[in-house]
Amino acid sequence: MRVVVPFDDREPKTRLAPTLGADERAGLAAAMLGDVLAAVRDAGHTPEVLSTAPLDLDTAVTVDERPLSEAVNAVLGATDDAVGVVMADLPLATATAVSRLTDTDGGVVLAPGLGGGTNAFLARHPGFRVNYHDGSYRKHREQADTAGMTVGTVDSFRLALDVDEPRDLVEVLLHGEGQAVAWLREAGFELVADHSRGLRVER
Amino acid sequence: MRVVVPFDDREPKTRLAPTLGADERAGLAAAMLGDVLAAVRDAGHTPEVLSTAPLDLDTAVTVDERPLSEAVNAVLGATDDAVGVVMADLPLATATAVSRLTDTDGGVVLAPGLGGGTNAFLARHPGFRVNYHDGSYRKHREQADTAGMTVGTVDSFRLALDVDEPRDLVEVLLHGEGQAVAWLREAGFELVADHSRGLRVER
Repeated sequence: MRVVVPFDDREPKTRLAPTLGADERAGLAAAMLGDVLAAVRDAGHTPEVLSTAPLDLDTAVTVDERPLSEAVNAVLGATDDAVGVVMADLPLATATAVSRLTDTDGGVVLAPGLGGGTNAFLARHPGFRVNYHDGSYRKHREQADTAGMTVGTVDSFRLALDVDEPRDLVEVLLHGEGQAVAWLREAGFELVADHSRGLRVER
Repeated sequence: MRVVVPFDDREPKTRLAPTLGADERAGLAAAMLGDVLAAVRDAGHTPEVLSTAPLDLDTAVTVDERPLSEAVNAVLGATDDAVGVVMADLPLATATAVSRLTDTDGGVVLAPGLGGGTNAFLARHPGFRVNYHDGSYRKHREQADTAGMTVGTVDSFRLALDVDEPRDLVEVLLHGEGQAVAWLREAGFELVADHSRGLRVER
């Protein structure tokens, strides 16, 4: 099956602006992409990056400047084969987690993200299309139900954690095993106890 | 094995105060406890509640007024058998998720919570003790490593989601299947699109 990793390099991770400068956000985004590509490869697949701009990577890159949903739907519409799509901002993704996605039964298999997104999916049904805005997980379920597609889900914390806000970096420092956690440590981030909430990151 | 569900009815869920009154927070906490007990039962275990005060439940309740870590450690110290401990504020817990905890190999098996907590664990090693404050997941791993216990982990979004803040209610409304989501709907909560972040709850 094809496994596609969409990547938008235009304004990466603006909600991390309180914590990281623009160049740093781009650096972290690249590290997270590296972690996702490694997880997909280690799970036995050949990832393809679907990017808004050319990237210098040791991986096939297709450039599509359209908005995310349009670009992904162009991929889905071009084949009747199964297509997996894994977001690029999942620095806790592992080969095991990716394999749980691809091994789960269903015409469409969804891995929910925190906050209602769809962080990864596998479309075996050729009619599935994405709509990523405003709580896509619910929309994708509804679409599948309406169209009579069977739906599988993957209960994975590692796939649920997309990095959007400074507090998400806590999870990367705690559970990361790849490039993103190394990038954060190199940038001087560490975990400190925060008595009201457990842990927060500090630099 | 014993499966213990600690429950503190003294000041439940104070970080939900912007959204719910004190009586409501107690109502939601009871509903979440009900969901956890159902998940444990459906996984084939007989849950025991470890509560700070007597509760009127159709489940064995042990009252221990000590702080959480002391009360759990008293349970762990009283037996050499395996003990599972599942927090009471995990309204997305399912029998499958509980079984993944109990089926995972390790002298101690940890299910991390968002923010660095330990939302559930299974201690097969009789020497394991808990320390729940300020990022317990890291402490529990360190303790196990130092003592030479093998550590298993459970990669579960359903076990990672403990309800502390209003934004956590989004996940309950999206993925809940039991009493807590019914309680929230009855109380008038629903999901609305929030263009910056996907979804939020509104009443």
